[in-house]
Amino acid sequence: MLKQIKGGVCAAKGFTANGVHCGIRKNKTKRDLALIYSEKIASAAATYTTNLVKGAPLTVTKNNIADGKAQAVICNSGNANTCNANGIEIAEKTCELLANALKIDKKDVVVASTGVIGQPLDITPIQKGIPELVAGLGDYSHLACEGIMTTDVKPKEIAFEFFIGGKTCRIGGIAKGSGMIHPNMATMLVFVTTDCAISSAMLQKALSADIQDSFNMISVDGDTSTNDMVSVLANGMAENAEITTEGADYDAFCEALNAVTTYLCRGIAGDGEGATKLLECKVCGAKDTAAAKTVAKSVVCSSLLKAAMFGADANWGRVLCAIGYSGADVDVNKVGVAFRSNKGVIVVCENGAGIDFSEEKAKEVLMESEIEILITLGDGDGKATAWGCDLTYEYVKINGDYRT
Amino acid sequence: MLKQIKGGVCAAKGFTANGVHCGIRKNKTKRDLALIYSEKIASAAATYTTNLVKGAPLTVTKNNIADGKAQAVICNSGNANTCNANGIEIAEKTCELLANALKIDKKDVVVASTGVIGQPLDITPIQKGIPELVAGLGDYSHLACEGIMTTDVKPKEIAFEFFIGGKTCRIGGIAKGSGMIHPNMATMLVFVTTDCAISSAMLQKALSADIQDSFNMISVDGDTSTNDMVSVLANGMAENAEITTEGADYDAFCEALNAVTTYLCRGIAGDGEGATKLLECKVCGAKDTAAAKTVAKSVVCSSLLKAAMFGADANWGRVLCAIGYSGADVDVNKVGVAFRSNKGVIVVCENGAGIDFSEEKAKEVLMESEIEILITLGDGDGKATAWGCDLTYEYVKINGDYRT
Repeated sequence: MLKQIKGGVCAAKGFTANGVHCGIRKNKTKRDLALIYSEKIASAAATYTTNLVKGAPLTVTKNNIADGKAQAVICNSGNANTCNANGIEIAEKTCELLANALKIDKKDVVVASTGVIGQPLDITPIQKGIPELVAGLGDYSHLACEGIMTTDVKPKEIAFEFFIGGKTCRIGGIAKGSGMIHPNMATMLVFVTTDCAISSAMLQKALSADIQDSFNMISVDGDTSTNDMVSVLANGMAENAEITTEGADYDAFCEALNAVTTYLCRGIAGDGEGATKLLECKVCGAKDTAAAKTVAKSVVCSSLLKAAMFGADANWGRVLCAIGYSGADVDVNKVGVAFRSNKGVIVVCENGAGIDFSEEKAKEVLMESEIEILITLGDGDGKATAWGCDLTYEYVKINGDYRT
Repeated sequence: MLKQIKGGVCAAKGFTANGVHCGIRKNKTKRDLALIYSEKIASAAATYTTNLVKGAPLTVTKNNIADGKAQAVICNSGNANTCNANGIEIAEKTCELLANALKIDKKDVVVASTGVIGQPLDITPIQKGIPELVAGLGDYSHLACEGIMTTDVKPKEIAFEFFIGGKTCRIGGIAKGSGMIHPNMATMLVFVTTDCAISSAMLQKALSADIQDSFNMISVDGDTSTNDMVSVLANGMAENAEITTEGADYDAFCEALNAVTTYLCRGIAGDGEGATKLLECKVCGAKDTAAAKTVAKSVVCSSLLKAAMFGADANWGRVLCAIGYSGADVDVNKVGVAFRSNKGVIVVCENGAGIDFSEEKAKEVLMESEIEILITLGDGDGKATAWGCDLTYEYVKINGDYRT
């Protein structure tokens, strides 16, 4: 029983947010510092990039929420604070300055950064911006969302209402995907807040399970950022009986969490750098879930297929090719492929071989901005969905000649 | 003791070649059928794509050269003969028609195709083209090279002379890389001929070892074709004592083979679809060779780095990022990065952190058409080189909107 409601990270009780321009970014019309604050100390959970090169803020956050608690999230855009000799020091100083302003413990701060790698981050603009950031806290999820955006075209925020033990709970989130003014990589940052009462252990469990089917199934360009982070704060102000074990309440929470993360995933993929189309690859009939995931990700990661989708070209051979080199155990003679959009479905391949289809109809289907690539394998019951986007001139432009 | 000589697959004694337009491709100015012929039956070896979806010609070739012998190579462009119900039949028919015309055994034919996947290949143009193809055999390596080219901009052929036991041997090759008129994928085809006497077992051993450091270290766009094939014919006409074991003669052969394959690798990478630059990533100081290869390939495969190179942007953070997610065991705090070209060397990162460098000088270095990305790890003695190319508007154009 989920209901979409207005707002993002401020939809849940007790959460306020804000976003300001403090001067890390040169463009004064762009907010570059975001804050999310919870009236009460919240259960906290997070997942981090698997890149061996990790942003300093991730190390500090990991340390800060080792006790499963947090009360605020601060995030800057314009500088990743990564590969800098004094990165940890700067991230810790940011937490300290914010904690002093909010009168909370500096160990209860989640800190994140996104932007260029390897340029020292000056603490001055952050120090200068924090008073305004804190003074302006309110129902401003959209301002926080803007503060973490870089060349993202669309803000990505969502909230849902759900019910646990007769109590109304709320969960909402904001996300940024791919694109920066001075881009280094498609850093993905996601901040989720909820007033559901849940222990930090169960919150981490729910998040760690969820990302396997959500954020880990997105690809914009195959580059895993050094600064990716997904964090959830749960402050318990909905007053449900705290979730401390698996069961119906936990399941209801996971369902709500997944509604938020799936929405944000689609938003991040569809708003990938230079993208004109969201690609959603749905695989069924795989040997197992792992094989389905491997196939789905391989397809949305294929540069050739991504370029074909940009050109609305039903080049299904590229889908077969990406399945074939995915590494999954697949009987290629049983593969079926169809494309689907708001304009209909077109079947292009059955039993591993092409079938006659109308190129005209295919073009019509593929001209839409959301494309499903439906793959049927003949190997079992495994299913998975992955999200990606098309490869466009604009992607090359953003990442190639932005300084020329 | 290697010496570059003129020519390609006809440099070795007893080999002739030809290329004609037979009508598989609509553009009559493009040759679409190529032939290489050896006067004497030759030792044959080949390696094939690892894609589970395999072109029918690969299956037929594998079967034909199971006895380690071949006398001719036939290759068409314009159609991959892959994912077709009658693919095997057509590939076998091609061998049969050619064998009849050349008066050789149909089991001594290597057959290959490159082009669009999933469109039935009509035997008629091949049948019609073979008489002209055979009648015109001569010192025409360049015509065969044209016959296998698709949207490759530059022909790729090379030959060397080397010496074994007082005898002069010759080895040469032609290759096609990425790009087709109706592209499906960057199929790579390489045909090498030599008059060196070497057993088919040792020839296969030499080839299988060589490709680990040559063709398996190239990436144009991360898509592994269904039709990739590298084959070598060695007809023994140099009259050296046949190489049947490891030793000095085998080493001399391997050195010559590697000179051919490395040249063709660089040609394929630099002439990748839409490419304006050859990228050569040289890693040293890795824990072991495997780690060095993993890092080198990860870097040349990064879309973000490839786009940065297109823009001549010394965005070394993207190099660090690609090292970090490569999966190799690397101490990221010891990584050094430099860029090098004909205009000089510029060091941009030491001990995992940025150092001051002249952006102007970096731009000058990166504006060149051949760029070395020099990575020094601090983990051991492992070394590797990988080749790739930049990511450009033209890549998107070729693969995206060629039908619009």
